Amino acid sequence: MSQNESGISEVTVEVPMNIALVKYWGKRDEKLILPLNDSISLTVDKLTARTTIRMIQGVGKHTVEINDEKVELSSNKRYQTVFDEALRLQRKRKEDSNGNENRSVSHHFEVISTTNFPVAAGLASSAAGFAAIALAIQQLLNLDDIQANRLARIGSGSACRSMSGGLVHWKKGEKDDGSDCVAVKTKDDNWTDLYCVILVFNDGRKKVGSSEGMRWTRETSTLLKHRIEKVVPERIDLIKKAYATRNFEDLARVIMADSNQFHAVCLDTVPPIRYLNESSWQLIETVEKFNQPEIKAAYTFDAGPNACVIVQKKDVSKFINALIRDIQINTDDLETLPEEFRSIEYQKDDRTENNFVCSKLVVSSMGSGPEICTPSKNLELI
Amino acid sequence: MSQNESGISEVTVEVPMNIALVKYWGKRDEKLILPLNDSISLTVDKLTARTTIRMIQGVGKHTVEINDEKVELSSNKRYQTVFDEALRLQRKRKEDSNGNENRSVSHHFEVISTTNFPVAAGLASSAAGFAAIALAIQQLLNLDDIQANRLARIGSGSACRSMSGGLVHWKKGEKDDGSDCVAVKTKDDNWTDLYCVILVFNDGRKKVGSSEGMRWTRETSTLLKHRIEKVVPERIDLIKKAYATRNFEDLARVIMADSNQFHAVCLDTVPPIRYLNESSWQLIETVEKFNQPEIKAAYTFDAGPNACVIVQKKDVSKFINALIRDIQINTDDLETLPEEFRSIEYQKDDRTENNFVCSKLVVSSMGSGPEICTPSKNLELI
Repeated sequence: MSQNESGISEVTVEVPMNIALVKYWGKRDEKLILPLNDSISLTVDKLTARTTIRMIQGVGKHTVEINDEKVELSSNKRYQTVFDEALRLQRKRKEDSNGNENRSVSHHFEVISTTNFPVAAGLASSAAGFAAIALAIQQLLNLDDIQANRLARIGSGSACRSMSGGLVHWKKGEKDDGSDCVAVKTKDDNWTDLYCVILVFNDGRKKVGSSEGMRWTRETSTLLKHRIEKVVPERIDLIKKAYATRNFEDLARVIMADSNQFHAVCLDTVPPIRYLNESSWQLIETVEKFNQPEIKAAYTFDAGPNACVIVQKKDVSKFINALIRDIQINTDDLETLPEEFRSIEYQKDDRTENNFVCSKLVVSSMGSGPEICTPSKNLELI
Repeated sequence: MSQNESGISEVTVEVPMNIALVKYWGKRDEKLILPLNDSISLTVDKLTARTTIRMIQGVGKHTVEINDEKVELSSNKRYQTVFDEALRLQRKRKEDSNGNENRSVSHHFEVISTTNFPVAAGLASSAAGFAAIALAIQQLLNLDDIQANRLARIGSGSACRSMSGGLVHWKKGEKDDGSDCVAVKTKDDNWTDLYCVILVFNDGRKKVGSSEGMRWTRETSTLLKHRIEKVVPERIDLIKKAYATRNFEDLARVIMADSNQFHAVCLDTVPPIRYLNESSWQLIETVEKFNQPEIKAAYTFDAGPNACVIVQKKDVSKFINALIRDIQINTDDLETLPEEFRSIEYQKDDRTENNFVCSKLVVSSMGSGPEICTPSKNLELI
């Protein structure tokens, strides 16, 4: 067995976050992170985690650094779970090729990750982060896609949806071991006309974490089961069909209905869970108005007050013009919009001065896949 | 046929509003006001409509006056519906006794109603108002309880639940003509220990009216049907059982879960309907805290932000003490509490100064029935 001089393999990847169009809420297996229902998502090209992983030979502690801050791994068990699984897969692979396992060679990981968005903004950056770790480890260890998908998932459930571009369908699977629980790109070409406008609304309230929230809902909601069994499968089909036929109105209708239903089952929980705040509701109202007489925008909210509004490229500027009449947007954010949307003159007079404040606005195309920035050093040589 | 000298019959009644413990939301027949699901309620003794009806012989226009303001009947069709039905029943009764109908004697109604609570506070005063009209007409025309119940219901659906005291079960019925759709007092003795604390939270938003909201939910929610078919029947049974066995914790659990589920199906509507505001959510949080480690209070919200918190008599003062730490309550309201709750010294220091403002607080016992204040002049003489 050979290896490079220092016994270090390194790879860098860049992975986008994703936003669910039909929401994941509830686990059928807490340990393996197997969901109770299918979900379907698109990536947000501009919001990414850029992650470098080094796999270092020898005894040592794993380290993870995100945006220049060290992560305390003892209180973030998910990283340990991912590293353990990665090293198990590595040993298994060697065992398969050598016929016996060489446990004497130990390794540890060093992860350095940068998100181009504040983690505290609550934009599901952990999904992009764990997808990046999984993708990097896939390169380092030559894993197949299903193994990599699983690695992402046990880090953060919805991370597996960031492992490819296009419309991604995360199938809940039926098997107890989770082997058929995998996120796959649907066959269709990317619908490159889809853009999203993301609005960060700060919120003083203490948020119910999604793992905890899902558990409460699964244990107490009398509506969740019906949603999972009857509503979600139909909606997954509707989304696929609307995406394949480029039917924006149909797509938008399902996106909004499913966001609302996700928040409805949160409210149908004991104790009730609320993620939407007054600004979120103002945004809903703004979109409702904008959608008269024709549906041109679809809002969706994850487990927090921030909004993601999906529009077609041709409607981005129009939508931002509608936004600024109802919600306070930073001048800076408007001035740093992508070139093609910046030419529009957002009239100062049109801008609102009410209490709904968007602390950060981002406009992004959707559907790009992750990127491997450096080729992996061939682990076969280790 | 005889009548009193002036040809006028008059009766005065006083009828309490009621609050649903399992909510009514959705009609199976819009015209007859037949609900999609059973509901169950308690009356609020202190919030009443006191109504005098005169039935005047001769051609003339019906008039309705509420709290000294004339109601424009052309834009409030429900009154006309009720009066038409009342006069139809009167003619039918005469026809039955005389063998032929005497259409030549016409009548009209004069209604004068006073609620001891501002109508604008959004406390379902129309339910008490229509129940009062129905009860008064029952006295005037010697109607049976089922006829009176129907009269109340076609005025305002949930009004039929104010026609008697105790725990009242409004059965949706199965028949198309609504003949088995009736609100009945459950057999149990009144649980006189139940009190409610009502908090009025003003709200700048334009509210979606309940008739319109129900229609939207019925037409667009994919959760409502499951609620109606599976969840509500179980909850009606649970409420009856908890009430019969005086099990407050069980009663409270169902009350809160059903309020939340009602608002969840509102959110699962296209477009989504929201009635709870920030103050409502603060109240939910206050109750959650108060219920540690033992459930002693149950919140419930109708189609608006105002809260009704049900507690046992022994816990009223304790609950108000918890309230004033989180929500601004008028000093006046505290000073005019019923004698038995007034002795508690609400410490000035304990009182909050945040933004959650309760504009009116009312404490009331529950479960009283309506009262007939004057005996009806015997219509048999007309």
